[in-house]
Amino acid sequence: MSATGEILVVGLGPGPDHWRTPEASAALERATDLVGYAPYLARCPERPGQRRHGSDNRVELDRARLAIALARAGRVVAVVSGGDPGVFAMAAAVVEAIEGDESAHALPVTVMPGVSAMQAAAARLGAPLGHDFCVISLSDNLKPWSLVEKRLRAAADGDFVIALYNPASKARPSRIFDAFALLGRLKAGSTPVAFARAVGRPDEKIVVTTLAAADPSIVDMATLVIIGSSASRLIERPGQAPFILSPRQAAGGAP
Amino acid sequence: MSATGEILVVGLGPGPDHWRTPEASAALERATDLVGYAPYLARCPERPGQRRHGSDNRVELDRARLAIALARAGRVVAVVSGGDPGVFAMAAAVVEAIEGDESAHALPVTVMPGVSAMQAAAARLGAPLGHDFCVISLSDNLKPWSLVEKRLRAAADGDFVIALYNPASKARPSRIFDAFALLGRLKAGSTPVAFARAVGRPDEKIVVTTLAAADPSIVDMATLVIIGSSASRLIERPGQAPFILSPRQAAGGAP
Repeated sequence: MSATGEILVVGLGPGPDHWRTPEASAALERATDLVGYAPYLARCPERPGQRRHGSDNRVELDRARLAIALARAGRVVAVVSGGDPGVFAMAAAVVEAIEGDESAHALPVTVMPGVSAMQAAAARLGAPLGHDFCVISLSDNLKPWSLVEKRLRAAADGDFVIALYNPASKARPSRIFDAFALLGRLKAGSTPVAFARAVGRPDEKIVVTTLAAADPSIVDMATLVIIGSSASRLIERPGQAPFILSPRQAAGGAP
Repeated sequence: MSATGEILVVGLGPGPDHWRTPEASAALERATDLVGYAPYLARCPERPGQRRHGSDNRVELDRARLAIALARAGRVVAVVSGGDPGVFAMAAAVVEAIEGDESAHALPVTVMPGVSAMQAAAARLGAPLGHDFCVISLSDNLKPWSLVEKRLRAAADGDFVIALYNPASKARPSRIFDAFALLGRLKAGSTPVAFARAVGRPDEKIVVTTLAAADPSIVDMATLVIIGSSASRLIERPGQAPFILSPRQAAGGAP
């Protein structure tokens, strides 16, 4: 055991340095090796002697296995994710790779949380996640679309606020339209909707609208979508984007 | 407008300084006034000349109105929350207070996201939130218990991972038992369950178990509860707490 290294699964946050935790920054300094999707590696400060192992976006499990191999060789490996590694990011791939490799079960692994895209979006929008909410990835790379539909229905049945990750797919661009068509049948047209793109980065763009008026063609892979509950409402502000409030108090609750 | 101050809604993260974002730390330095629940104010560094307005935990809206009054008087007011202010914390109260006060609509308000308790818990547990999940507050102070039940049922119907905030209530200690009894009828007894208390603080305690074996009497107000989906599984690790993996791949998804 004494010759083994360790794995640090690091959340970089949504983009700007001021949203990256001190724990994550210290991990990036301490690591001998960085493993991750190339655009996330590009966000990490350059350090002499530190090795970088960039990869494409579709190979999470290969990336995790590389991290295990490096750690077993005594390296301190930071596996970097945008946002929070625990939310549709690298923590699941690393744990899955460890599960499939008995000899990796004793490796020291530390997951370091980060601010996720939905939280950055919510911050700009006031308080859209101020009450119970669901978080759903629209990607059907690894799950059947029928399961996505089942979860969208359940989220509407429970009158949750809904945060959608991975709303756009080059392979299946129709999915976000399918999702909005389904939700449009299940929820009121006046439900507030926000498309929050690249929040905290130079190309940030936020559109606040309603379910009836929403045009899902504007989403891309950097967009986080929030759809309100029946209690969510818009608050207009002079000269600024409106807020979305999902209030703490529900109908029938004590005052 | 030029004489007005501003409101910064600041997320302190789950506890330790290394999980507080640089943006939040800078806001605590810049603020002339700190407003918040007293235990959260106690986490903020002391600064000469900075005024502190501590309060009890049940008066979020009063706290938000105080922040508005101070900002209108030209002060730079940091409203501090544990975790992420957007997740069952002060952002909703501040936006609600602004909604109810036309003269506050033009006040500059910046919400600063933070790492929330579920993310700290998930980091310790490997990857329990690695797939679609729901986030539900069990508090029925402001919503009827029937709505909590409806959402628990919907979350089970959608086979979401479930994160429960505010699982304990001095006023109604039976609620967590009611919730577990309901979920026990709707989900398999082998479903992984975690009780993650005060993660990142000196009194951190994590219990990993199953729905059939879970003893909800151990929860308190500092506990975050995670209940897996049908796909979630435990991964034993020698000498360490087991991981919970909610895998990226669902049955029926492409390999």
